[in-house]
Amino acid sequence: MKTLGEIGEDSLISRLITLVPVADQTMEGPGDDCAVIDDGRSGFLLLKTDALVEGVHYERSADPLAVGWKAIARVISDFAAMGGKPERFLVTVALPKSLQLDWIENFYRGMGNCMSRYGAVLAGGETCRVPEGSAAVISISATGSVSREQLVLRSGGRSGDEIWVTGRLGGSISGKHLSFLPRVEQAAWLTGNFALSAMMDLSDGIASDLPRLAKASGCGFQIDEDAVPLNNGCTVQQALTDGEDFELLFTLADSLGLPESWRSIFPDIELTRIGTLVAENQGRELSGGWDHFS
Amino acid sequence: MKTLGEIGEDSLISRLITLVPVADQTMEGPGDDCAVIDDGRSGFLLLKTDALVEGVHYERSADPLAVGWKAIARVISDFAAMGGKPERFLVTVALPKSLQLDWIENFYRGMGNCMSRYGAVLAGGETCRVPEGSAAVISISATGSVSREQLVLRSGGRSGDEIWVTGRLGGSISGKHLSFLPRVEQAAWLTGNFALSAMMDLSDGIASDLPRLAKASGCGFQIDEDAVPLNNGCTVQQALTDGEDFELLFTLADSLGLPESWRSIFPDIELTRIGTLVAENQGRELSGGWDHFS
Repeated sequence: MKTLGEIGEDSLISRLITLVPVADQTMEGPGDDCAVIDDGRSGFLLLKTDALVEGVHYERSADPLAVGWKAIARVISDFAAMGGKPERFLVTVALPKSLQLDWIENFYRGMGNCMSRYGAVLAGGETCRVPEGSAAVISISATGSVSREQLVLRSGGRSGDEIWVTGRLGGSISGKHLSFLPRVEQAAWLTGNFALSAMMDLSDGIASDLPRLAKASGCGFQIDEDAVPLNNGCTVQQALTDGEDFELLFTLADSLGLPESWRSIFPDIELTRIGTLVAENQGRELSGGWDHFS
Repeated sequence: MKTLGEIGEDSLISRLITLVPVADQTMEGPGDDCAVIDDGRSGFLLLKTDALVEGVHYERSADPLAVGWKAIARVISDFAAMGGKPERFLVTVALPKSLQLDWIENFYRGMGNCMSRYGAVLAGGETCRVPEGSAAVISISATGSVSREQLVLRSGGRSGDEIWVTGRLGGSISGKHLSFLPRVEQAAWLTGNFALSAMMDLSDGIASDLPRLAKASGCGFQIDEDAVPLNNGCTVQQALTDGEDFELLFTLADSLGLPESWRSIFPDIELTRIGTLVAENQGRELSGGWDHFS
């Protein structure tokens, strides 16, 4: 009998989703950054759920204002990855009775700061206890929206498309992972002005995330490691595998005018071409990156 | 400095929701069974989140098929409590690496059985690990819908309204809590045929839940303990405080014809008047019921 540690996260998810009914109206269900639902409104409804576990994603000694910010920002980053924006949040906190009230209040303040910054609101929640000695678990679900014209999936990449990333990568654990700004405005500008073929956010590192995007698009990829934009003091290996950059990874067939326009609008954020999508089974393999059960 | 165990769940929630932005378009946010959102569709959008914690809500030795059923059924019961039905689920599981794959697969099968029974689907999810020795936490979020005419809130009760419950109460822990059928069809029939003024589902027991409904409606209440419908072998005290009955508790001004019509449609399910809403500060106090941090 296998345990979860033996099979890994991607394999676990693909087994589990065969065991439940999956949607008809849902255009993209489990597998993309968000579920995308055509419910007859002018845009699409986006749905996303995410979790933070004490001792895995944060330590109790971490600043609860920052942990709260991150809890919300991670989900907003997934909406940005589809070209969308957040709307309403549902927050479930499973906490030990011994937790200080002060901690959870500052955690909520941190969440509130991030919701306010991005125009989102709390719509509901659940509080419950975990047994003493157990890790706290915080689960965040949210609705978002994206206009029909600006939706970008992981699966639209084509052989020959250029691969680009925003920002600099690597070393997020030294602080950026708790205070990052999800790329909502940048994604809206990109999808509003250029014909992006595929996009996702970099949560687990290029080494994990780019193969996912390429696979969803039925492509392979080539990357120029020397081009990967590095955060100060980081190696290429760190930039590829550290994860939690929460930058945008996207592809498009034609980037004519993109670098110049980007610089004029977002002068403080790097934008870098790092490679090319190629035919499936060509290109290269990347290894490393973050697997939640390995 | 206070801990969560010292302040209790209702008090915790009312403090926390002052710390984050709360919705404009949201008609009912934190406090009712679901959030109710007027997003311009023909009906209202319902949002709900809920959680199950190993060692608190279920034991690892419990049948994972039944735990999966319960995880989904609890949320569906909240949609029923508004007169609505479920649509799409987001499932987050935070699990120890040592958990058997078999357990989680059967848990998903159980969830799938309940989704299929009620016409709902999985739209997305998240898997992550908890440190070894920590309790597993399962968080379920969902969207639902309700027609504009059939929405019933907790807050619409008026002094003089009759208080009714479906089914029999008490002793759920002996098995019903893992296999109950959420009252979706019953709630749809009630809200389609009678002018219900307030409704909720009985998750924490009448002793906790009826005061919440009365308070939300700005009323007090009187209850006839001898009228409370008991499950076999249960005392009135158990029926009032055990919780997890997942029956409907509702109020209405005029029940003319209700018992007779109900019996013809749902002959196997009890329907009982247990009391009356009265003016605020009149009526009685109930104590007991389930508080998640006490």
